[in-house]
Amino acid sequence: MADDEQTFWVPLRFRDVDAFGHVYHAEFLTLLDEARTRWLRDVLRLERPSDHVLARVELDYVSSIVAADDAVCADVRLERVGTSSLTLAETMRVRDGRVVSRGRVVIVLRDVERGVSRPLTDDERARAVALLAGDPG
Amino acid sequence: MADDEQTFWVPLRFRDVDAFGHVYHAEFLTLLDEARTRWLRDVLRLERPSDHVLARVELDYVSSIVAADDAVCADVRLERVGTSSLTLAETMRVRDGRVVSRGRVVIVLRDVERGVSRPLTDDERARAVALLAGDPG
Amino acid sequence: MADDEQTFWVPLRFRDVDAFGHVYHAEFLTLLDEARTRWLRDVLRLERPSDHVLARVELDYVSSIVAADDAVCADVRLERVGTSSLTLAETMRVRDGRVVSRGRVVIVLRDVERGVSRPLTDDERARAVALLAGDPG
Amino acid sequence: MADDEQTFWVPLRFRDVDAFGHVYHAEFLTLLDEARTRWLRDVLRLERPSDHVLARVELDYVSSIVAADDAVCADVRLERVGTSSLTLAETMRVRDGRVVSRGRVVIVLRDVERGVSRPLTDDERARAVALLAGDPG
Repeated sequence: MADDEQTFWVPLRFRDVDAFGHVYHAEFLTLLDEARTRWLRDVLRLERPSDHVLARVELDYVSSIVAADDAVCADVRLERVGTSSLTLAETMRVRDGRVVSRGRVVIVLRDVERGVSRPLTDDERARAVALLAGDPG
Repeated sequence: MADDEQTFWVPLRFRDVDAFGHVYHAEFLTLLDEARTRWLRDVLRLERPSDHVLARVELDYVSSIVAADDAVCADVRLERVGTSSLTLAETMRVRDGRVVSRGRVVIVLRDVERGVSRPLTDDERARAVALLAGDPG
Repeated sequence: MADDEQTFWVPLRFRDVDAFGHVYHAEFLTLLDEARTRWLRDVLRLERPSDHVLARVELDYVSSIVAADDAVCADVRLERVGTSSLTLAETMRVRDGRVVSRGRVVIVLRDVERGVSRPLTDDERARAVALLAGDPG
Repeated sequence: MADDEQTFWVPLRFRDVDAFGHVYHAEFLTLLDEARTRWLRDVLRLERPSDHVLARVELDYVSSIVAADDAVCADVRLERVGTSSLTLAETMRVRDGRVVSRGRVVIVLRDVERGVSRPLTDDERARAVALLAGDPG
């Protein structure tokens, strides 16, 4: 695991599963949201990690997730740093090591009070650049 | 149907159905919320019908709802008018006439800007009292 | 805490929160479902704890839940044992000890393959009766 | 509008909106699912239009959706036909004409009983090829 990758577990809920007995495809995004927000809090150390919006998502569904999988984790890797945006590569796995999805999101940081996007602060940018530099890939 | 009852159809979504092939029990509340808010808008004629919170719910699950049911409707009947609260009896049905739930909620009107409950206005109270009076039950 | 009560933590998700900044009222049922199913697995020791349906719910919303509450737990107490049904009293709390809901559900055990309700087994009934007897209330 | 495009309206629910007052990003997929399944039923005329899974999604979030938007529609355009898969380009709009998302999904048809993917039937393939041929793009 690269230095800039961290693993977080998100427990599944019965409600995540759809009529086919698999976690519903839109819930992959809900689960990734939880993992990503913790990464933004604990790795990039944003003060208000929820205050962002998605600008783009690409997701390959690699394997279905079933209730018995119990929880998912996502490896998050920073790919690109923009003025207000971050591009993150995300691989979601279950406890047996099976990869269930691979994807990429572009998120934009928000100033929620003012209702506009906001640039990264100098500290955030410094940490982001360090994460990029530490990426062996 | 009593004068104070109105019927509204809410289309089901694939996502409402759970791993057993039935609409998930918590989604009954989501569906009732849609029907109730339209009743608050169209019958009680609240200006901001979404601005309320639930204080209590009682719900009997009478019949499961399946995807083929396609949509639900709810008959809403006003049972009691408080200073800021309304008690509503709600019966949910599907297109073949089958009753799927019977219940009762207590809602409290909210002043969302100030974050507090608000009393009914005189106009709202007058309409509510008229609805109660017209109830043959 | 009574012997038959157990506490389980369910982490909140950003998605649980609605447009008013509070956990949506229907999600209280989703959260309680997680806590209840773990109680059915760990305390009543059902082999397939998810295999049940709700027959009735009564819920008083005592306090709103916000994102900062982070997780909820529910104390589950067995109140009544029927042939195929259980009545459970459930109190949900957040980490600061605040009670957020109090309620009661009637659940019916299901034979999912056959699509019918199923009676408690002798072992399950014995454990349920012991839980009832140990209840100081 | 191309011949192979059809417009379907999906009403929003209060629950679709998140803590920022916008439809939650994962719900874009839920809404698109409804529109897509109707397209599979009414345009491609699959007998069991829900019986498919997502293999991939790409989605650009163009504009946020708010409760006042009331409903969304999606233009679905067939881009590619595989043995068991279809690639669909989807543009979601609200009533004022604003585009809220643009994206592309790859879906795989499922034989739900056998739990495997299934090839398009000859009739389905003929309709799909005709839709492709009619595409001026």
